[in-house]
This record gives sequence, C-alpha cells and structure tokens, in this order.
Amino acid sequence: MGKITTQLTEARAGRITDAMREAAAHEGIDPGRLAAMVADGKAAIPANRKHAALKPRAVGRELKTKINVNLGISRDCADVEAEFAKVRGAIGLGADAIMDLSSSGDTGPFRRRLVETSPVMIGTVPAYDAVIRLDKALKDITSDEWIETVRAHAEDGVDFQTIHAGITLETVARLRGKRRKTGIVSRGGSLLFAWMSMTGRENPFFERFDEVLDICAAHDVTVSLGDACRPGSIADSTDGAQVSELVALGDLARRARERGVQAIIEGPGHMSLSDVQANMVLERRLCDDAPFYVLGPIVTDIAPGWDHVTSAIGGALAAASGAAFLCYVTPAEHLRLPTFDDMREGIMAARIAAHSGDIAKGIPGARELDDRMSEARRNLDWEGMFSLAIDPEKARRYRAESKPEREDTCTMCGAMCAVRNVNEILEGREVDVK
Amino acid sequence: MGKITTQLTEARAGRITDAMREAAAHEGIDPGRLAAMVADGKAAIPANRKHAALKPRAVGRELKTKINVNLGISRDCADVEAEFAKVRGAIGLGADAIMDLSSSGDTGPFRRRLVETSPVMIGTVPAYDAVIRLDKALKDITSDEWIETVRAHAEDGVDFQTIHAGITLETVARLRGKRRKTGIVSRGGSLLFAWMSMTGRENPFFERFDEVLDICAAHDVTVSLGDACRPGSIADSTDGAQVSELVALGDLARRARERGVQAIIEGPGHMSLSDVQANMVLERRLCDDAPFYVLGPIVTDIAPGWDHVTSAIGGALAAASGAAFLCYVTPAEHLRLPTFDDMREGIMAARIAAHSGDIAKGIPGARELDDRMSEARRNLDWEGMFSLAIDPEKARRYRAESKPEREDTCTMCGAMCAVRNVNEILEGREVDVK
Repeated sequence: MGKITTQLTEARAGRITDAMREAAAHEGIDPGRLAAMVADGKAAIPANRKHAALKPRAVGRELKTKINVNLGISRDCADVEAEFAKVRGAIGLGADAIMDLSSSGDTGPFRRRLVETSPVMIGTVPAYDAVIRLDKALKDITSDEWIETVRAHAEDGVDFQTIHAGITLETVARLRGKRRKTGIVSRGGSLLFAWMSMTGRENPFFERFDEVLDICAAHDVTVSLGDACRPGSIADSTDGAQVSELVALGDLARRARERGVQAIIEGPGHMSLSDVQANMVLERRLCDDAPFYVLGPIVTDIAPGWDHVTSAIGGALAAASGAAFLCYVTPAEHLRLPTFDDMREGIMAARIAAHSGDIAKGIPGARELDDRMSEARRNLDWEGMFSLAIDPEKARRYRAESKPEREDTCTMCGAMCAVRNVNEILEGREVDVK
Repeated sequence: MGKITTQLTEARAGRITDAMREAAAHEGIDPGRLAAMVADGKAAIPANRKHAALKPRAVGRELKTKINVNLGISRDCADVEAEFAKVRGAIGLGADAIMDLSSSGDTGPFRRRLVETSPVMIGTVPAYDAVIRLDKALKDITSDEWIETVRAHAEDGVDFQTIHAGITLETVARLRGKRRKTGIVSRGGSLLFAWMSMTGRENPFFERFDEVLDICAAHDVTVSLGDACRPGSIADSTDGAQVSELVALGDLARRARERGVQAIIEGPGHMSLSDVQANMVLERRLCDDAPFYVLGPIVTDIAPGWDHVTSAIGGALAAASGAAFLCYVTPAEHLRLPTFDDMREGIMAARIAAHSGDIAKGIPGARELDDRMSEARRNLDWEGMFSLAIDPEKARRYRAESKPEREDTCTMCGAMCAVRNVNEILEGREVDVK
C-alpha cells in the first residue's frame, strides 16, 4: 500500500492541505484552526482523491452546519436524466452533500457520473449496492463481496461511505430478545440484520473493519459510521439498542482515526424533543466529538406528509446542541420517493434548521445575515429582503400575488403597518392609519 | 356592577363550573385539578358568558398546548364569505382558538357572527378596532373611545382580548433613546406608540387598567396581555425593552387576578433558538406561571415564505419548555395576507409544534398517538397510518401518487423495505430484497 496520506494524517503532521485552505475559507476561519480540528477528529473533510470536481468542505460541531440530500435511481424511479435534474437542482438550492442511495438499476455509471459532475461531497451506502450489483440472493452474498463493494465505491471517487459496522451478532440477539416498537428501520442495517440472521455469520463490515479502513485510507474516503439501530419511533429512542451501538461506533471511530481515516457518526432518527440535547451530549462524549450526522431527529411519529417540518424542529435543536451535519427529510418521507418539489421543500426546511442552529451556537457570520435582513425589513426595502431571503423566488412570488394598497407595505397590515408607522413617528412625522 | 363571578372567582371559591368540567374532560384530567390551576392563575378558561356556541377549553403549561389561528377582514381581503370559509376550515383542521384581526370594514357584524357560529375560543385586539370603527384620525381618538372598544367586544361575546397595557410613556422614551434593529413590530403596540407620541398622553389601557378589568370581569373576558415590544428580529430579542415589558405584564397579570380576571401573557416573536428556554423560565418566574401565549418564536429572520417552519421550530421548543398557547404563523408571514392554503400549512405546522412539545413535556395521552402510529408502521398497516396521521388527506394523497411494486411497502425503499424485511426475519422466514 505504501505510506498513506489523508487529510487526517496531513493535519496530524502539521501540514495544511489545499482542501483545508479551501474549506477554512468557506468557513471564514484560519486554516490552522481547521487543521487542528481535523487532527483531533473533531472535523472531517470528506474529499476522495479522485473527486476532481469537488469544492472541499469540512463538517464539525464548530463549523457551519451542513446539509445532505438523498437521491438515486430505483425501480420505481429509473429515469436517470430526471434524477440528474434533481442533482443539479439540489446543488443550486444549497445542498452541501448528496448521498446516492440508488436501490436498483445500473448504479455504477450513475455513481461515476455523479462524482464527475458534482462540486459537492458525494456519499454512498455500499450495503445497498452489494445487493443490487450482484446477481444473487441476499443470503448468498459472500463476506468478500460486501467488502469489495466498498473498494468499488472508493475507486469511483466517493467522498464518504456509510459503513454499518456497529450492528453485530450480539445486536441481532438483543433485538430478538426484546422487540422494539419498530425494530430496525435503517435500510442498510436491516440488510445486514437479515444477512446475519440467515447465515449465522458475523457482520463482515465489523469483522473486517481494518480492511475497510485500509481501503478508505488509500482513497481518503471518510467513514460515516451507520446506526443500524436508529430509532424508528419515539418509543424506541435512546434505548439500549441505540445507545449500545453508539458506544460501539465511538470505538470504531477511534480505530478509524488510529489508521488515518476520518470518521463521522450517524445518528437518530425518531426522538422526543426532550431527548435531543442529551443525545448530542452523549455522542460528543462517547465518540470524542466526532462530527455527528443526524437524520432528523423527527420529533413526532404522527406527521407523515409533514416530516420536513418534524425534522426541521429536531434538526434545529440538534444543530444548536452540537450536530454538524443534517440529512434532509422531505414531505414524502414514510410515504414514497420524493419528487423534485418534495426535494425542494426538504432542502429549504433543512437549510432553515441548519441556519437556526448556527445562530444559536454562535457560528461566526450566521447572525449577520439575519441582521441585514432585519435592517432591510425596518427600511421596507423589499428588494433587499428578497435578495437576503433563503428562498428569494418564493418570497418574491408570495408578495407579487397580493398587491398592497401602499407600495411600501404588504397586505398583511396595509396602512396599519407597524414598521412604517413607527419609522414615521421616530422621524418626527405624524401618522394616520386609515 | 353587583358581585362578579368568573371562572377564576369560582375556582377560588372551590366551585367547579360546567366549563371546568368540560375543559378537564378534554384534557383527560380531574376537574378539581384544573380548578386548582385556574385558582392559581396557572390555567385560564377563556369563556365569555355570552359565547353560547363555545366548547370551553383551558390553556396552561400543564395542559395540552393549544393553537390559535388569526383571521379577519381587511381592505385587501374584504370578502366576508371567503373569510368564513376559512373560519370553518380552521376549525375543521384543529384550531383551538381564532383571533379576529379584522383591520378594515364592517367589523361588528363579522365579529358577532364569528362568536355565534364558533365552538372555539374567539379573541380580538380592541386597539385595531378602535381605529377602524371610529371615523377620525388616530391621534384624535379619545381615552374613553379606546376603553369603550373593550366594552363593545366584551358585549359581543369575545372570550379573550389582547390588551396592550404594558407599553407606557416610559417605553416610548426608552425606544426613542436606543433604537432597536426593528423597533416595534406589534401592530397594536405601534398604534399605541404612535398615539402616545402624537398626543403626549399616557396609554389609556395602562392608565385605566382597573376599568378595563371591570369590563372583563363583568363578561368573564380573559385579558391577554399584549407585548408591544415583541422582538421583530433576532437582534432585538431578550433586550431591555422586551424584558422590562414582561416585568410590567407580570404586575398587570397579578392586578387582573386580584380583580377576578383571568390573564394570559403574550410573548415573542423573533428569537434565537438559544434564547427560547430562558424566555420560558423568565415568563414563568415574572408572571407566576400564567399561561404563556407565543407568536413563534421565529428562530431566523431570513426565511420569508417559510415562517411556518421557522415558527414550528421555535414553537415546539417553547411548548416543550412551558409555553401553553401557540399563535400559528403561515408561509405568508412578512409578505401578504394568508390564503386558505397558507392557513392550512400554518395550522399543520403549529399543530406539529404543539404536539411535539406535548410529547416532550409528558402531557398525558400525547405519546400514545405516536405509539399507535408506530405500531401501524411496524405492521405496514397503511389505513391505520392514515387514520392516525395529523393530516390524513395529505398522507393518503402522497402515497396514492406513487404506487409501489409491492402493495405492503412504499416506493422509497420498495423490496428493500427495512420494516417488512425485519418482520419477516423475526417471524423466522427468509427474505430476498430484489
């Protein structure tokens, strides 16, 4: 293999890479400070050596919260060009990362084209693709074949891979003994659970974790340690299965870093708002502050059709409490594959959650945007408001659809506009409000 | 006046009213326990003696979080029948209260019809209506005329009225001295600010507060103490103006209770997520745990078009931390009057926030809904999921728009459905996932 160099090994050696410089510039921080976070495992820069189109970005608790968009081809949505329209849309709308969760079809060309054309981080889940690319039943997949899928994705230039190494035969026994309300809802986790149950063999991603790490190190792939026991219901959250796996993921993250591989930790999931902050503390302690990548948290189970909202609530509090990376959730969650419009809503909700979290934890530069918006509001500067809005198109359209009687106000208050009238009074003029 | 009796005086006298019984039944708690909360001012049952159509409900920190919907006629939306279609829609979608914020036109008949036909609590803001119903300039409104508007609304059967008694000449001087980023954004607050500035006179709602209370006591109108200094930007939140007013509102609430009048406190507003919990603690201490009615909190300023999401984030954490009553916010906030569809989105987002808060603070019965949904999910019981969904129509429509290859799964994962495959394995069957 020769001597490996990754962002982590370089940072430990005190060298500042171009990727660190570029990612630090995006954050508006000193590259040396970012390098120190990377060296400590508190930030990761997922950047496969082969991903030439990438604009490197860092994820970490003290950095701007990033958002991921899930896309990919499937049997029910096999139109490659439609999916690439989504990819372009997602990047335009502000996605920081795209995970290719293709579940059917000719995944290799799709993945390679995605890497070639995307300036954002690309992630994959090799457990899915092992099932798709091999012409055999799940239980007949060999240990080698699971591992070789990691290598194939690494060679294709993927920046981070979800590795479900935390679920083991011991987990399987635990889950059989005490049934959770919703068992395993992680797709990759369920595949390994089924494979282990049917073959009686240990999880190859766990058993051969060092081999996985060597593959990742050779291409500087960041391991995203998958949480197979992610709670699928409020009832199952912060239970033994979830917390035991988090302990295991912390151990695996340390092994990754020791081998020069950057690691991030995947997390919940469905969870009461009352548990979110404790879960962020738990991850920080158990996993040495490795970047925490959360799916949600979805704070109520009863809102299918509105899970972009339930996850914005949980995601905002998670980010405010230390999560570094939010996986978007769309209104289609729990119901069907998302359309382009669903994706748009999911991205906006996730960006709002991320930004709200950044304001709350005092990320430099976050609040300035809000201050500029508030000044534009006080000045009734509508063009200024639109240009600062997270979704200028929607803001502009909403106002245009309902013309106010006074140009400077809006139809919500009309002549009773508080902003206008207070401005007038403070400038020494009288007002009427009819 | 004779001897007044209100829910508060009755509760203090140890009598349990029909309204207490009905509201307690809705909560699933003992009427005596609710009466004790009402006696302490920790819960309010806004129920005007004249509001015959009302199904009484209580608001309070230890009760189910309630949501309010703002409606009303205005110059830009003067179609009374269209507005009543919204009223019926709001009630059908789960509003617990409707505030009539009419800002123009023939408001009396609208208000009386609203009270006559509505089973939910009705609130108004007399400061707006004084301006509308009187054929004179704002500065020429007399002190008597402001107060008489409260009486008119009380006689029309309104259950709660926003009384902007916390803003005084002292506040005016403070706001002139140190300019906030967004000054006063409360519409009623800005009217009184302008009136005081132009006339040099003290706020009549403050100066003649005891008269206001006597009117409210006579009809058992709950005073909702308005926060004129509600922050209109993250920058202005939890500042001297806001906190001083909250101190004053606590004093006014005590005066109300001493006079037998139920009181609730209105609150923020735009606010960083990091400040929400502290604000809930502050209100509880300064106002003796009087029910807290919040508008948002809106956790970032930069998302016009998406403020149903920004306020769901803040509202959920507020409810989880003690807020009793959430005012809905629609995607049209800051841009225009809401349409029916905007109202629908605002209600769903507010209901999600309220329910998420109820789960987090352990309101009895809240989590049970989620548990039943999770059981339906584990059983792939789609009809069960739809019937338990907060928005059955949307959930059903989303799934119907994208038919899966296997009837029991959905197009998100298809044959890789984790729930289905884990169920199969746990029942001792093998699975394939192609």
